[in-house]
Amino acid sequence: MRNFKNTRNFKNIKDIRKFAIKKTKEAIKRNYANEEFVLIQAINAYNELSKSYNLFFERINEWFGLYFPEISLTSINQLNEFFKGFENKNKLEINDFYRVFDDKSKAEAIYQKYLNTSGRNLEENEKKLIIMFLKYIKNTDETLKNFEEYLKQTSNKLMPNTTYLTDEKIAAELLNKAGSLEKLSIMPSSTIQLLGAEKALFKHIKFGSKPPKYGVLFKLPAITNAKRNIRGKIARLYAAKISIGLKGDIISKRFIAKELKDSIDKTLEKIKKNN
Amino acid sequence: MRNFKNTRNFKNIKDIRKFAIKKTKEAIKRNYANEEFVLIQAINAYNELSKSYNLFFERINEWFGLYFPEISLTSINQLNEFFKGFENKNKLEINDFYRVFDDKSKAEAIYQKYLNTSGRNLEENEKKLIIMFLKYIKNTDETLKNFEEYLKQTSNKLMPNTTYLTDEKIAAELLNKAGSLEKLSIMPSSTIQLLGAEKALFKHIKFGSKPPKYGVLFKLPAITNAKRNIRGKIARLYAAKISIGLKGDIISKRFIAKELKDSIDKTLEKIKKNN
Repeated sequence: MRNFKNTRNFKNIKDIRKFAIKKTKEAIKRNYANEEFVLIQAINAYNELSKSYNLFFERINEWFGLYFPEISLTSINQLNEFFKGFENKNKLEINDFYRVFDDKSKAEAIYQKYLNTSGRNLEENEKKLIIMFLKYIKNTDETLKNFEEYLKQTSNKLMPNTTYLTDEKIAAELLNKAGSLEKLSIMPSSTIQLLGAEKALFKHIKFGSKPPKYGVLFKLPAITNAKRNIRGKIARLYAAKISIGLKGDIISKRFIAKELKDSIDKTLEKIKKNN
Repeated sequence: MRNFKNTRNFKNIKDIRKFAIKKTKEAIKRNYANEEFVLIQAINAYNELSKSYNLFFERINEWFGLYFPEISLTSINQLNEFFKGFENKNKLEINDFYRVFDDKSKAEAIYQKYLNTSGRNLEENEKKLIIMFLKYIKNTDETLKNFEEYLKQTSNKLMPNTTYLTDEKIAAELLNKAGSLEKLSIMPSSTIQLLGAEKALFKHIKFGSKPPKYGVLFKLPAITNAKRNIRGKIARLYAAKISIGLKGDIISKRFIAKELKDSIDKTLEKIKKNN
């Protein structure tokens, strides 16, 4: 309402109403149309895509087992290469296996398994369906990469300190759990430490199970790779520095992550020495 | 072992072993490499894809609301058409709305809403990401259609009676829940009626909640569209006829679905009259 007096003289109540609606719309736009909400949509879409990708990959792997139960292929690229051989013919040759496996002797061993497989014959219509499904899974993978690119850009833009200390996905996920940058910026470090562990926290409060030590932050390599007994300590350390970094991201708009990271590294060494 | 004596004279134990392994492999192939298992993989992939599709669609709809909270688009085709307008320019024109909506006056009303939107401005990198995501969702839709085609072919081939009485997805889903055609063919009709309602059934047995009336069969339009009080009866009727049809599908290999359908229709009429 601060511009209310200066801007114009209202002749009647209708003008006032119009003006008030306009101002409210602008306020809504200011508060609910920020880039952070796009980042939240993007990290959610990314999570859903990546869950689906895993489902699809497990499915195609199980399916593949009907035809060649003796062979196990570990990546979607290997599966793709394998089925590429089928696109123009019905039987694979040794060259197809050289294409799939870098190791020549491994390729030959698997070719032998392929020749003596007790699996099902690959029928024409099933072949088509599988190759189509594999292409789709590949497309899912590319879509994921496009999202990763966006997450990287935008997390670094909106939360440079937090992204530097963690990574673009963890930063976006923290924002997602908090709901907005403003809410995130005023959270105490203990809340940040447990963001994403709400279920375990309430189980602890209600039924007295062990309290959680970390939520989203568990994805930090520093925690994942640490010994069990110091993981909680490391999570607390990171949460403390992230909460300082967030103030730099959102309130003072300063990049202070390098100093924070140095401080984390020093304390990490101490923790590892003493435990 | 029936061919054991006639086929050859074994000189030593090694030959016998080789022969036994070969026969076993053949038996495995006979029992576990049937087309029905491909159908099971396909219906599972279809279900996972269709769940993912719904997730993606909900996501893009919510996301869209950031930019145009006043406009609601109900299908992925509308969303696609809407964003097509953005591919070469930054603002939509009235013609773009004529393209999306068949109804001219509706298009104009929504164009007005578009002009006065209180949503976020569509930035270049977000536009790219959204258009890419929409293409991916479209691709998911096409993949689903390819799977539907396969399900139709194969359900009709393996379970012509059951598919005629229900549809290709319900037939494949029944097979999926049962695990194999053989198991399905010897199931009593009461089991078929409850296939897919295992959770509710065990809840009933353990905690005394209401017993379920149908599982997979709920997707039958005859049941979905019926009044609540006769749904259980209709499910029992269908299950009885399906179990007869399955014997025709799997054991006697006869197409008897037309007679069964007639009998269902007659009894349906009676049920509707009396309730």
